[in-house]
Amino acid sequence: MTWDDAKARAALRALFDAAVASADPRVVLARHLPERPRGRVVVVGAGKSAAVMAAAVEAAWPDVPLSGVVVTRYGHGHPTSRIEVLEASHPVPDAAGAHAARRILDAVAGLTADDLVLFLVSGGGSALTTLPADGLSLAELMAVNKALLASGANIHEMNCIRRHLSAFSGGRLALAAAPARVVTLAISDVPGDDPASIASGPTVPDPTSFADARALVSLYGMALPEAATAHLARAESETPKSGDPRLAGAEYRFIATPRMALEAAAKAAKGMGLAPLILGDALEGEARELGKVLAGIALSARAHGSPVGAPCVLLSGGETTVTIGREGGGRGGRNAECLLGCAVTLAGAPGIWALMGDTDGIDGSEDNAGAIATPETLARARAAGLDPRAELAAHDSWGLFHALGDLLVTGPTLTNVNDFRAVLVG
Amino acid sequence: MTWDDAKARAALRALFDAAVASADPRVVLARHLPERPRGRVVVVGAGKSAAVMAAAVEAAWPDVPLSGVVVTRYGHGHPTSRIEVLEASHPVPDAAGAHAARRILDAVAGLTADDLVLFLVSGGGSALTTLPADGLSLAELMAVNKALLASGANIHEMNCIRRHLSAFSGGRLALAAAPARVVTLAISDVPGDDPASIASGPTVPDPTSFADARALVSLYGMALPEAATAHLARAESETPKSGDPRLAGAEYRFIATPRMALEAAAKAAKGMGLAPLILGDALEGEARELGKVLAGIALSARAHGSPVGAPCVLLSGGETTVTIGREGGGRGGRNAECLLGCAVTLAGAPGIWALMGDTDGIDGSEDNAGAIATPETLARARAAGLDPRAELAAHDSWGLFHALGDLLVTGPTLTNVNDFRAVLVG
Repeated sequence: MTWDDAKARAALRALFDAAVASADPRVVLARHLPERPRGRVVVVGAGKSAAVMAAAVEAAWPDVPLSGVVVTRYGHGHPTSRIEVLEASHPVPDAAGAHAARRILDAVAGLTADDLVLFLVSGGGSALTTLPADGLSLAELMAVNKALLASGANIHEMNCIRRHLSAFSGGRLALAAAPARVVTLAISDVPGDDPASIASGPTVPDPTSFADARALVSLYGMALPEAATAHLARAESETPKSGDPRLAGAEYRFIATPRMALEAAAKAAKGMGLAPLILGDALEGEARELGKVLAGIALSARAHGSPVGAPCVLLSGGETTVTIGREGGGRGGRNAECLLGCAVTLAGAPGIWALMGDTDGIDGSEDNAGAIATPETLARARAAGLDPRAELAAHDSWGLFHALGDLLVTGPTLTNVNDFRAVLVG
Repeated sequence: MTWDDAKARAALRALFDAAVASADPRVVLARHLPERPRGRVVVVGAGKSAAVMAAAVEAAWPDVPLSGVVVTRYGHGHPTSRIEVLEASHPVPDAAGAHAARRILDAVAGLTADDLVLFLVSGGGSALTTLPADGLSLAELMAVNKALLASGANIHEMNCIRRHLSAFSGGRLALAAAPARVVTLAISDVPGDDPASIASGPTVPDPTSFADARALVSLYGMALPEAATAHLARAESETPKSGDPRLAGAEYRFIATPRMALEAAAKAAKGMGLAPLILGDALEGEARELGKVLAGIALSARAHGSPVGAPCVLLSGGETTVTIGREGGGRGGRNAECLLGCAVTLAGAPGIWALMGDTDGIDGSEDNAGAIATPETLARARAAGLDPRAELAAHDSWGLFHALGDLLVTGPTLTNVNDFRAVLVG
């Protein structure tokens, strides 16, 4: 099979669609449901996909009496008939999120060992269930978060402290639900898919303790609000640890992860005669720079057959960053910017196409999921009067791909397993 | 075999040494020499390794009458007995380089078809042989270069214009040597190992023409000095093209390339029980960002066995950049900075070690070739009172690895096949 432009574009789009389909709760959630319980089924959840996940449970169990409440981001609602859907603020928490977390805790209270709690969790779940521990205000918790972000601590260290200042996360939802069986169905957009990090782990044992949290505050010299310091010092209500009998009935099932999406794309690629190579499901870094690196790997594949021989496709996931300098930014999107960085480095090299997009369907501020680059991208851009390097420097990759008609437009996908990148070497 | 700290460090150092040895002219040049000719042997050359390459020819052919002249960078001399060594300025050309180029052209003049010209070329050869075409001054050529760098043209496009304003490059040395047989022995530090790009290709056909050069000047709207524009318009002496009978006797042999160095390391890795994966020989981008990407790939290898299962080593070459912001820079080196970016992203993940170094033995402004990072690097740095993120932001990766005693120090290696990076996943 020769990889001409039309075939390469169609193949890349099919790979993206395979990745997104693998993460669509309407497609995949049902097969992860446990046995129906003898007692009640209470469905709770939090995250940007919470409403569509709830709808997927309702569709899978049309004749099971369901009750419960989930919280999603403002505007991310989806019709449900039996499970209530609340909305709250993301990424900056608000009182509606604290109220929703309280409603969820109330919904799982008073259950028996015959009952089942389904916890539907996806990206954004942490902000949407920000419920301060007793004695702390939401404003104080937000001040803590600011101090964490400025401290130099890594994400695992920040989450350790967060879990010890919350009334919801760090296993506390599972404690509230005990002795009911708790099954978490999770869509991960977190590097490493650590259950304790996804939405700050409301249903899983906490690998850390109050003492760990205090040690980190001291190590990084964090200046926390007084009420937070006092709460950490009191250490009244330790989070549940691994082996805690109250969490014995808790199960964690991933219904979608970046890795699963890449594997779905890899399987589809094989069917097209492309050797897939998954470079990683959590690649990070500045978007345009990752684009340059992927270009270098693709050029090596084409010229030397390593790390994989052509025809092949290099797959990767994760979430890059775009740093806007003093000059300000255009209409970018991290995937389009990564793609343009890749195209500029490829400099029109023949036989290499790429698609990069956000699996949630929206890359940045515009309505596209990402874009597609071909060996002709730079020449066509110049013919249209655009300077690709200048567009990249101005963070206006959207403008360039828009002018070429090469945006990838899918609309919101109702799921999110982070970015998806495919570089096809024909 | 378990990969403990001592074993991993020793393995990484052995891989670096294998890469450098594969590029050492004293080790590898002799096997690439052609048959001795019936007539004279004239040795010419240019580049940072020119003197040691000349010495390697002398050592290999102790009883062959040799004459000739090579030019290297100031301070890069090496003792020779029969071949003269000149020195000139790099990277900014000077009159000594123009003089050396003229001496080289004179040395190969008047030869016969029985004679052999060995052209020894390595990184820096272009600057060291900057000889303006008739009617152009060195100052004008340098003004051209400034305009090229500001134009947005890529390296291949810039080289096209350079070759048409030079009296030495673009095949002109081979023309001067005809009808003698010309064998070029090359050490490549150029992405893609394009002979026309290495030292601007003095002994190879020029894939481009005066018309191409004029088209690029127009495409990018370059403002060149008047004498340069006039020279391109006159197009008096076209560079030789592929198939030119005057270049029929010209052969090009790579004695060392980034790819060959990575393959040497890959072979050594196999002998240690490590599965090698060469990601690419020409990875580029901002050093710290490449470090983050390599960390992501290593984490994927460890957690998921892709793109390669552990125990393995991810190998890559190429040349990154370090952009110093308004805040100024510390003592960095692009390899140490890439390594620290990698270590910060790994955040102490167990079982992953890395070595990154410049194969020329000097990474940046200090006397180290690079450095080594281990799972303990961040913790040890913090215990020493250093904040790894702050050191990275301040471009003082050297300071951090120096404080830990983890610099890689080899001294100048007398060769250069660019950067070498190895990430070992145990």
